[in-house]
Amino acid sequence: MASVPELIRRKRDGETLGADELRELIEHYTDGDLPDYQMSAFLMAVYFQSMDADELAVWTDAMLHSGEVLDLSSIAGSKIDKHSTGGVGDKVSIVLAPLAVAAGLKVPMISGRGLGHTGGTLDKLESIPGFDVDQSARRFRELVDEVGAALIGQTDDIAPADRELYSLRDVTGTVECIPLIASSIMSKKLAEGIDGLVLDVKVGSGAFMKSLEEARELGRTMIEIGRSMETDVRALVTDMDQPLGRTVGNALEISEAIDALRGDGPDDLVEVTVSLVTEMLDAAEGVDDREATRRRLRGWLEDGTALEAFREMVEAQDGDPAVCDAPDDVLAEADYIELFEADRAGIIRSMDAQEIGLASVELGAGRMEKTDDIDPAVGLAFRCKRGDLVEPGEPLLEIHYNDHSNLAACRRRLARSIEIGNDLDEAPPLIFERLSQP
Amino acid sequence: MASVPELIRRKRDGETLGADELRELIEHYTDGDLPDYQMSAFLMAVYFQSMDADELAVWTDAMLHSGEVLDLSSIAGSKIDKHSTGGVGDKVSIVLAPLAVAAGLKVPMISGRGLGHTGGTLDKLESIPGFDVDQSARRFRELVDEVGAALIGQTDDIAPADRELYSLRDVTGTVECIPLIASSIMSKKLAEGIDGLVLDVKVGSGAFMKSLEEARELGRTMIEIGRSMETDVRALVTDMDQPLGRTVGNALEISEAIDALRGDGPDDLVEVTVSLVTEMLDAAEGVDDREATRRRLRGWLEDGTALEAFREMVEAQDGDPAVCDAPDDVLAEADYIELFEADRAGIIRSMDAQEIGLASVELGAGRMEKTDDIDPAVGLAFRCKRGDLVEPGEPLLEIHYNDHSNLAACRRRLARSIEIGNDLDEAPPLIFERLSQP
Repeated sequence: MASVPELIRRKRDGETLGADELRELIEHYTDGDLPDYQMSAFLMAVYFQSMDADELAVWTDAMLHSGEVLDLSSIAGSKIDKHSTGGVGDKVSIVLAPLAVAAGLKVPMISGRGLGHTGGTLDKLESIPGFDVDQSARRFRELVDEVGAALIGQTDDIAPADRELYSLRDVTGTVECIPLIASSIMSKKLAEGIDGLVLDVKVGSGAFMKSLEEARELGRTMIEIGRSMETDVRALVTDMDQPLGRTVGNALEISEAIDALRGDGPDDLVEVTVSLVTEMLDAAEGVDDREATRRRLRGWLEDGTALEAFREMVEAQDGDPAVCDAPDDVLAEADYIELFEADRAGIIRSMDAQEIGLASVELGAGRMEKTDDIDPAVGLAFRCKRGDLVEPGEPLLEIHYNDHSNLAACRRRLARSIEIGNDLDEAPPLIFERLSQP
Repeated sequence: MASVPELIRRKRDGETLGADELRELIEHYTDGDLPDYQMSAFLMAVYFQSMDADELAVWTDAMLHSGEVLDLSSIAGSKIDKHSTGGVGDKVSIVLAPLAVAAGLKVPMISGRGLGHTGGTLDKLESIPGFDVDQSARRFRELVDEVGAALIGQTDDIAPADRELYSLRDVTGTVECIPLIASSIMSKKLAEGIDGLVLDVKVGSGAFMKSLEEARELGRTMIEIGRSMETDVRALVTDMDQPLGRTVGNALEISEAIDALRGDGPDDLVEVTVSLVTEMLDAAEGVDDREATRRRLRGWLEDGTALEAFREMVEAQDGDPAVCDAPDDVLAEADYIELFEADRAGIIRSMDAQEIGLASVELGAGRMEKTDDIDPAVGLAFRCKRGDLVEPGEPLLEIHYNDHSNLAACRRRLARSIEIGNDLDEAPPLIFERLSQP
């Protein structure tokens, strides 16, 4: 075994490290024998020199096995999860999990919280009174087995090496690195005991991947890691240039997700969700006729089947099931609503999702630091999307807020984020492409 | 002030950082407010993205001012130091300091110890019984003022930021980085209170810079830092492909240096020394006729003037001055001497200085770890140089050793290091080029 400085130098100089060497780095780091200052230098070297497929498979496997790896093999059915790389207004998981359960899948889903301009599924779920995302591994298994889906937060036992590495990357300028992002996501997801995984790789102003090329590379890197672990991983690259759906904010997004589960969701949200569940089914059992599958899934949104699955999930995790029938009575509402109006006539050329996400953070809907509190009631409800024609003074969106002092900063960001012009560039597709194992 | 992760990211992405930002990094690091794991990631980013001249001037200045900066301005005469980037058999400082004093210069010289294949001036001086390299800043001034030269070790007060950064670089794979090497050297040297500095940038198998191009870049980088600090810095790029002189080992090298101070030194050692002192004089007062100056310097080696200056330096630092008259009686001698012989007839094509340095370390003449002890008596005394014709069985060198158990490893390295062939490539020059401020 080479010394740690020697391994850092070899990675720095573009060499490929051996499996034992990479495993020892992760093991010694997790044991506390390898100090942060050596790991951060190594990570920065990886930022510049990357890791090849073999290195990344070992690196991910070592992180995965740094903690508990759930074994759900005794549970009947295909266990398929979905993971989004993060966006603004992304409430897909709330609609997708019950729809996938309605379609016969098991969905063991460990989700995250919002940070910066992006929201998090756990924060959204917690706006349902009583909903408990903190569940033991034992209860997680039970939920998957009995209810069909579990939506919980990261536990201390899952991939502890990733948790420590992520904290270190966060303060050492090594977050924005595709192999490190891919191995971080995959080590956590593969620890869930899944049979397959569908990735929603977001691309655009509100996504971490700003270009299609980067999004593709991230998707392909994760698919390749999945292949090395003999797990079916595929990806859809989807648009995050404007927020998904018509709401940004936790209770507002739950309400919108329930609309979708009642067959009344916005087109983009429903389309992305149905497409992702189709991929999940394809990973589980193969889908011959995609159009027929999509029609069946839309049917379960319209006939209440998916909503009933959601009701069971909410009840099983101690949430108030009345949210399914009368969300407005159950969910927190902001004290004030103000309109944000168009300042000119024209066509909405763009709605910068990152700025809109940050505008919602100004209200308290998200957090800039991990320890910040969030306010479930506040957020933005849009009455327009890119491509809509608007008149001067026409309300573009509602600002739901509780604290007047936040309003000016929110409005400034909104003014920057929505561009009204005379013509429209060609709209990007909602779903750019489908990536799967070769 | 941007956050530290933001500064790391900006350097990582190739941006130029502002003076205040770089100063704060050094200040907060020295204060202990900036953790090692952020600094090591920053240093790795610098490895890949470098620093421009303005950044490097500020970075060096901040390290320089992290501790005491000596003020020798009240001492009459020009204070000029020489610094070598390190080599094998490099006893130049021992000859150069008294020769420069003989020529009327003041030489405030803070030197280092050997590590790895390279030797260190302090270790060589300490093979003179009684010689004390640990002197206070006050005594350092007195020595420069009264004796003309002081040859001491690094003190805790000089450039503490560099000391901490160097320790961190040593364990994080960030040593081999020209801007970091240049700023480390210059921050220490400029803290000596010098008027000018002549660099001996070694190039070849036994040097840190393996190519002429790298050596040039290091020399130019240090000259540019000097310019920004209004200090005359110039450099000679000199050969370190074979050891300098005919000895490698501490007492052996002192003995050889005294030979040179008696006018009986090996040609390469004398040539490099005389050339460097000529540059020191040029930096101090300008040299019109270089050849006349060189003749005068050689005269002071031959007529005993330089040796008398050395005797005063040894006495002033509590060493036994008898070393100047009868080095063999004063210096430690190894218990055993064995010959290393040519295994074939031919011409000596190369003598790999790094392997020869490591062969001497096997005997105990150097150290692989900072805490290793060294044996002043052991080492290698060569009877040949590159280009010499040899017969089979002809002794190429003497191995001076105290411990039989080290001999086999030393001989293995020597066998690898000395190449005997049928023809000779064109010999590189001893002095490749002279670099100075534009």
